[in-house]
Amino acid sequence: MDNSVIDKVITQAFTEKSLHQFYCTTETCAGWERNIIDQPEAVKKIINNGADRIAAGLGVGRELQDLSVARMIDHTLLKADATIDDIKKLCSEARDYHFASVCINPAFVPLADKELDGTDVKVCTVIGFPLGATSVSAKRHEAETALNEGAEEIDMVINIGMLKSGEYDYVFNDINQVALAAKKRNAVCKVIIETSLLTDEEKIKACLIAKKAKADFVKTSTGFSTGGATASDVALMKYVVGSSVGVKASGGIRSREDAEAMIESGADRIGASASVKIVTGGVGEGNY
Amino acid sequence: MDNSVIDKVITQAFTEKSLHQFYCTTETCAGWERNIIDQPEAVKKIINNGADRIAAGLGVGRELQDLSVARMIDHTLLKADATIDDIKKLCSEARDYHFASVCINPAFVPLADKELDGTDVKVCTVIGFPLGATSVSAKRHEAETALNEGAEEIDMVINIGMLKSGEYDYVFNDINQVALAAKKRNAVCKVIIETSLLTDEEKIKACLIAKKAKADFVKTSTGFSTGGATASDVALMKYVVGSSVGVKASGGIRSREDAEAMIESGADRIGASASVKIVTGGVGEGNY
Repeated sequence: MDNSVIDKVITQAFTEKSLHQFYCTTETCAGWERNIIDQPEAVKKIINNGADRIAAGLGVGRELQDLSVARMIDHTLLKADATIDDIKKLCSEARDYHFASVCINPAFVPLADKELDGTDVKVCTVIGFPLGATSVSAKRHEAETALNEGAEEIDMVINIGMLKSGEYDYVFNDINQVALAAKKRNAVCKVIIETSLLTDEEKIKACLIAKKAKADFVKTSTGFSTGGATASDVALMKYVVGSSVGVKASGGIRSREDAEAMIESGADRIGASASVKIVTGGVGEGNY
Repeated sequence: MDNSVIDKVITQAFTEKSLHQFYCTTETCAGWERNIIDQPEAVKKIINNGADRIAAGLGVGRELQDLSVARMIDHTLLKADATIDDIKKLCSEARDYHFASVCINPAFVPLADKELDGTDVKVCTVIGFPLGATSVSAKRHEAETALNEGAEEIDMVINIGMLKSGEYDYVFNDINQVALAAKKRNAVCKVIIETSLLTDEEKIKACLIAKKAKADFVKTSTGFSTGGATASDVALMKYVVGSSVGVKASGGIRSREDAEAMIESGADRIGASASVKIVTGGVGEGNY
């Protein structure tokens, strides 16, 4: 990564944020992410900084009624004590509601692959999860094993400590090794940045590095740290990665209302354990 | 594993617990683990069940003043956002106080190996951490990579969901693959059973399987789940694994008093982030 590019984008993002705070004085302002609509001049500057890094795919104003929310949901069970029966139930629900995927720990990939054979539900698993602090080689091997066993989507956690230590080349390579393994198998690679542990500046850096390292999605949270997805983080992430990279909101999404707020802010995918309650309109209990 | 042996040991352990509750009517009874001293007949039965599975190494009544507590401590920092500077500080403290090891995430093994070169402090890392739910192959490769990079102790997490699903052969193989990788390099293998998620019966099963799978230690907790070490869990684990396998107490040990309670119950090693405060007699703040 070229650090001067990162600095430029960060400066521009913060400039826009100030601009927005200056202009936006009424309660109807949804958030500073609306700059891209309200401040065309600022957006032009962003695009001039490199269209492959910043693009205009905010998702503000989508008609939620027209979306099939279920097809955006990764139905998730990552608890350490989840049993074989729990995973079978998860797969059965995913089949019934046509969720995008089930998101499970790697040891259960062969089981989920078998349970979902012949359905439209994909098998998604997690890599370096939830701390993101294992070696690059371990993440790559863990991903390759899961892909060989039937995983079609890979949610990997960045090395947060290395990001905070300014080791951007390390962070890039760590993501890139997993993304390349996924690409070889035509699998989707989502990159979890764990927003609750990052400053806004670090969130922007993480998104830029993930995009450069060939991530298909950036994802807010593991659900195992100090906090989950917020609408403003989703908007910031979507703003930085643009339309060619998806944003997955995860962590603490317990109701249809939560999910809709994330989608309005620009989320393309929702990670939730309360998925059934989200599509049926109830309120879930899961922490994920 | 032979399930009838597991059942026999569990029955015997619970019988002894009842015996103890029956006999022990005063406040001086430290806990049911004292059966091994107070109930020689019951102990004989246990030993008759197989001396390689149950042995008499309780550690009750040790003179703590004669022990160098520091040499029993794994100085621990496993937070996802720990930086390079944090790890350097951890290594520096471990050198100063002669802790047994520093316990860090795999990505920092090369750094810790360099920082601790020429000292008596070992590099310990964690495998399949903290959920224990990745594939067997991923755990084995993660361990081998860490051992190649300088790790001399390996703390691996069992597959808790598979244990709860009754898949004992899976749990055995999962541990054994990592233990064998460690043995090849003369490294120590500790097996984390995550007591807070297990019933007493499951704790006993996990300890028996870990011992059979060539664990050098069983360890109570990751520090990332719903609870940490308790004196009664340490006593139960020591009781089951005997003197040839060590017990490491970890999670929530914040003071010298906590550490001493664990050692009195039979712990051979203490995992703590508050290590300096433990040896200097203060009270720590860490959750680990």
